[in-house]
Order: sequence, then C-alpha cells, then structure tokens
Amino acid sequence: MGSRLPYRKNENVSSRRDEILRCAAEIFESKGVGQTSIEDIAQAVGVKREAIYYYFKGRNEILAEIVLPQSGELLASIQAILMTPSSFPEKLKAAILTHVSSLTPGYLELTLTMREMEGVGEDEKLQKLRGMWKSYSDLWAELVRQGQMDGSFKPGLNPKMVAFGLLGMLNWMSRWYQPGKGASLEEIAETYATLAMQGLVED
Amino acid sequence: MGSRLPYRKNENVSSRRDEILRCAAEIFESKGVGQTSIEDIAQAVGVKREAIYYYFKGRNEILAEIVLPQSGELLASIQAILMTPSSFPEKLKAAILTHVSSLTPGYLELTLTMREMEGVGEDEKLQKLRGMWKSYSDLWAELVRQGQMDGSFKPGLNPKMVAFGLLGMLNWMSRWYQPGKGASLEEIAETYATLAMQGLVED
Repeated sequence: MGSRLPYRKNENVSSRRDEILRCAAEIFESKGVGQTSIEDIAQAVGVKREAIYYYFKGRNEILAEIVLPQSGELLASIQAILMTPSSFPEKLKAAILTHVSSLTPGYLELTLTMREMEGVGEDEKLQKLRGMWKSYSDLWAELVRQGQMDGSFKPGLNPKMVAFGLLGMLNWMSRWYQPGKGASLEEIAETYATLAMQGLVED
Repeated sequence: MGSRLPYRKNENVSSRRDEILRCAAEIFESKGVGQTSIEDIAQAVGVKREAIYYYFKGRNEILAEIVLPQSGELLASIQAILMTPSSFPEKLKAAILTHVSSLTPGYLELTLTMREMEGVGEDEKLQKLRGMWKSYSDLWAELVRQGQMDGSFKPGLNPKMVAFGLLGMLNWMSRWYQPGKGASLEEIAETYATLAMQGLVED
C-alpha cells in the first residue's frame, strides 16, 4: 500500500522519520486523512505521540512531505509535455492522461488534503506545495495559450479559465472515481480528452 | 449578508430557531464553515451553547438546514430545464448558467461543506442533501443522454462521466472564483458552455 504513496527517500534522514512517513501514508490511504490522528500514526509506528512530534509539527507537515514528490512529478510532466514537438491537441491529451493517471488512491488523498489544508496556518512545506500547484495550473493555461497562438485551439476563450475548468473536471474525479470499479482511468481520460477538445455537440 | 444564504422561513418554527439559522449563515459566510464553532454561533445569537444544542444536534445539522433550500432550487431548475421545448445545446447552456449563477458566497460554502461532510456520521438531513445532489447529477446525465438520443450531442461519450466532468468543471470554481474580481459569472458561464459544447480545438 505504502508504495502507492511514494516519497523520495533521503538517505540522510533518520530511518525512524522514514518509517513515520511510510506508516502515515498507509493510514492516510486506508482511513482517510480526516480520520487519521497523530495517535493513530504513533500506534502504527509503535511509538508515543511525542516521538512523532519530535520529527514533525503535526499531521499537515507529514502529509505535505508525502505529497510533495508527487506534486513535483506532475509539475515535471507538464513541463516535459510543453517541450515536446507534438501538436497542441496531442499535448493536451498527454496532459489529461498524465493527470488522470496520477489519480492513484494516494493522489486522491492529496486532492482531499488540498481542500482540508485551506485556511490552515501557513507552513513552509504547505507554501511550497501551493506554489507547485499554482505553477502546475499556470502551465496548463500556457498550453492552452500556446495552442491558441498556434491556431490549433479556438481563440477567445480565456486560457486560465479553460485551465481551471479542465483541471476541475479532472480533479472532481476524486469525488466519484473508484479504482477497479466502473470505467478505467484510460477510458475516463479518453472521454475527457474528447469532451475538452471536440465538445459535446455533434457536428 | 444573511440574505445571500437564504433558507425558507417556516412560520411554525420558533423565531429563536430562525435566529440561530440566520446568525449561523452569516458567520459561516464571513468566517468559513471550518472555522465556525457552536460557541461562535451562540455568541452571535447572544445565548449559551446549550441553547443551540436545544434546537440542533450540531454544526452539520445547522449547515444542512441552511443549504437544503438552495439545493432544492438547483434541483427544481434542472428539472424545469429538461421540460422546456428548447434544443439540447440550449438546455445545456441554461443548466450551466443556472449552476454558475448559484455560486453565490453561500453556495461556495455549500460546496466547501459537501467536502467537509464526507465521512461524517449519517444524519437524516445530510442523507436528504446527498439524495438531492445525486438526483441533480443524474438529471445532468439525463440531459446529456437525451441530447445524444436526439442526435444533438456526440454519441459514445458516457453521459454520467460527462455530467460529472461538467459539474466538476463548474464546481471547481469554488476554489478560484472571487465575486467582484476578474471575470463575471456570465463570462465564466459563456466560456464553459463553449468549451463543453464546441471544445477547444479550432475546426
């Protein structure tokens, strides 16, 4: 299970710290972030609450550390997609596929978390995460804008609004998608790529 | 402020109960649901916590009672739209406009709340709300399905998946839309209607 919520192992970091992250990732995934307490994590690791607080300020810091590498990978993927020589419709389709494919249970927790973390006090790692998410949606807008400049995409639609709309369409999956049930991620990505690019209306 | 989070006044209900709902709606809107305690509501009404618990089981019950009429109106509007003799693209556009127009600050709280209420114990009113939201998205899927049968919409796209995608696109606005800043609701509805129906790709 933990392997579905990977974090980059830093060999300089104590193994106890790593163990906490690994256990927390598993519990977040099985119980849900909202239902997981520091006490639960401590029990799973087999230590006292205080031992968790020695390494982390609280649940949100643990969570941020788990999701940072995933967010970094998504950001790197959209950057790579923008650099490819493909057509803009192909780039958009690749971006949709990559985004949808990142919707592992771990990522579902991430999106849930994004919501929960709103309004929570600032923290260096949360700020870094928010910065990554902002860069990520900016690059989606950039993809749309470049496709418009190129003549591939309809002019006149606000690129940022389109980017937010498409990301909303995809992120909403965290509310209804159940891995292993119903449509596969590939089918969903295919449907949403068609909807985003050709629209619903039959020509 | 309270008028932006309306609830249907029932004259048989005690005025104290009404006052609690009115105050709670104002505080939810100004402070955010997550940051509002029963204590805050009690202070605003000018009573003790116990007086609130006399009328309501807790914050979620108050919230459900505030958002039920709004959800009922959205549901009635999509039902009415389905009954009109307009073309399916016109119906979809009307549904998008109505949905987006319901994004008053009060509705933003509603969507925030939908997320917060997940995983929270069952309650009669919450069940009723969830039922309404399910009926609402079912009717969006029905609109898409009927449009496909009619030949107006592309066949082959899963109506339910399309409905979830469009609602996700619109609901995501609760994360970025700021009333009075940037694009107006009309511009946003126009953009998303074009995106949903014609798609991004220039013909």
